[in-house]
Amino acid sequence: MARILTGIQSSGRPHLGNILGAIKPAIDLSKIPGNDSFLFIADLHSLTSLRDGDTRKEYVRAIASTWLAFGIDTERTTFWRQSRVPEHTELAWYLNCFTPMPMLENATSYKDKVAKLTADGGSANTSNAGLFTYPVLQAADILLYDAELIPVGKDQRQHIEMTRDIAGAVNRSVGEDILVLPEARIDERLMVIPGIDGAKMSKSYNNYIDIFLPENELYKVVKKIKSDSTPLEAPKNPATDITFQLYSLLASEEQIAQMRSNYEGGNYGYGTAKKAFYELLLERFGSERERFNYYMTNNDALEAELQAGEEKARAVARQTIQRVRQKLGFI
Amino acid sequence: MARILTGIQSSGRPHLGNILGAIKPAIDLSKIPGNDSFLFIADLHSLTSLRDGDTRKEYVRAIASTWLAFGIDTERTTFWRQSRVPEHTELAWYLNCFTPMPMLENATSYKDKVAKLTADGGSANTSNAGLFTYPVLQAADILLYDAELIPVGKDQRQHIEMTRDIAGAVNRSVGEDILVLPEARIDERLMVIPGIDGAKMSKSYNNYIDIFLPENELYKVVKKIKSDSTPLEAPKNPATDITFQLYSLLASEEQIAQMRSNYEGGNYGYGTAKKAFYELLLERFGSERERFNYYMTNNDALEAELQAGEEKARAVARQTIQRVRQKLGFI
Repeated sequence: MARILTGIQSSGRPHLGNILGAIKPAIDLSKIPGNDSFLFIADLHSLTSLRDGDTRKEYVRAIASTWLAFGIDTERTTFWRQSRVPEHTELAWYLNCFTPMPMLENATSYKDKVAKLTADGGSANTSNAGLFTYPVLQAADILLYDAELIPVGKDQRQHIEMTRDIAGAVNRSVGEDILVLPEARIDERLMVIPGIDGAKMSKSYNNYIDIFLPENELYKVVKKIKSDSTPLEAPKNPATDITFQLYSLLASEEQIAQMRSNYEGGNYGYGTAKKAFYELLLERFGSERERFNYYMTNNDALEAELQAGEEKARAVARQTIQRVRQKLGFI
Repeated sequence: MARILTGIQSSGRPHLGNILGAIKPAIDLSKIPGNDSFLFIADLHSLTSLRDGDTRKEYVRAIASTWLAFGIDTERTTFWRQSRVPEHTELAWYLNCFTPMPMLENATSYKDKVAKLTADGGSANTSNAGLFTYPVLQAADILLYDAELIPVGKDQRQHIEMTRDIAGAVNRSVGEDILVLPEARIDERLMVIPGIDGAKMSKSYNNYIDIFLPENELYKVVKKIKSDSTPLEAPKNPATDITFQLYSLLASEEQIAQMRSNYEGGNYGYGTAKKAFYELLLERFGSERERFNYYMTNNDALEAELQAGEEKARAVARQTIQRVRQKLGFI
């Protein structure tokens, strides 16, 4: 029995890469008997880089609809919007006071972000205090729920270490283990999903497949998948073709074998392969597309799911914050 | 009609210097017809330097009891503990994301505090993210209540400028003036109250007079007031004597004239002057000492005052935070 917590970035509408690489694995993990899963949409974090309110709301709705479409079990999993549980920012303030400045100054992810801002033609000046204290809010997200396991990519390992250090400092200061030290669970198997240009599928590379697009638009995107200039008649190498790689991620063993023989036999064009991939997308994600559209057009149903989750989350968060307030002399 | 907001530091039990220099002027200001006063105990801020919870609770109770003892009118003035209104830390997070890092890095008060930590034999490493983002929480304190005037010492002028800059950044970003830009009200007449050694009375110099001490302890402190070695018989210079200065802060014109002639006439010892000052303290602050002890020993009465204030404060804070959430896409 482990309490697992995952924060979901809310900086864009989820694409196929997010779905296969993060959303489906997290949902699968949440269904393992004995696991107690906490999943939240990190909308407070998104303000460090996204200021437009309407865009944020739209992203958050799309993200929530995606997770619900892919079958997150909100009976068993606590699923909420971070901004609706004010204990996150309250705990973040307390933790700020236990976070040595050099810990934040030396955070690799912060240095990378500032370097990127600078490289983008701005100056380091465009960095803000939200970006700088991001790891502290993240520590609060984790510690508020007594989370034990945090599934993260390697680039986030340092943040979990920081969370442990901050929690340790609080515990030592109050002379009691009021905060649970979490463990990172680095998933080595993390799939890298190729985008339509072959690079890692990513919103920032603009090479992603949004599986919730209307059919004609989705087909247009699929047709843009990069392919080489091997003539129609010639045999094609499935190992190096992006359409084949994407197809293989969704197809059955049999379908993959058939597609491989199509490629190797020649007289099979990339256009035909793309059409097969497009049809596979519609077939594999038909019911998810339907559920996504249902939540996106029935805001009350979406709100009902999220608000139920927020109540469950707050019940846990309140207990932790009471312990912390008590020991720090705020009650 | 101006809305005036004052944050009360909660880093110690108030002494005579605080009372004459800050508390009484603020209470007088709050009683000017047309002024709408907001006064809060900045207990969240105190965590940047004070970690012990019991001490914090004790300080907060003593501070609240002092303000009540000196006659703050909680019908007209909103008086609350910052930590009981969670909108402070929520707004602080939003504002963090609009606060450029160099603004905080260049804050004079932060640089001074780090320099002091370093000089105290520690290293700059002992500085924490709470200390660093202190001005952002302060901006939240002000902006949450649409405060117009902030009475501050000169050393705080920069923080009000920062608050205006941050509020301006938010307003520009959302395209609407949702936050009110406050004005600093620098009090040039600020009294410097001498401590028992003649330096500015301050907790950190340990030269303060705690007027709420039991009589015998209070008398002991008064007897420690520094004086020169002029013999009993000789005339004494009132202008350079600390006891005379302190006495003059509390005495009537007549009493001061009488004391001056005692000094100048000779045959009047410092011990007698100190006894007169001690008796004046008891006379001037008799009812305040009584009310202070009442609140310190009747916690329910103290809580009732504070909780009523917290409800009034939250009603205003909720309106502001709703405007901000709305525009930033959190509703």
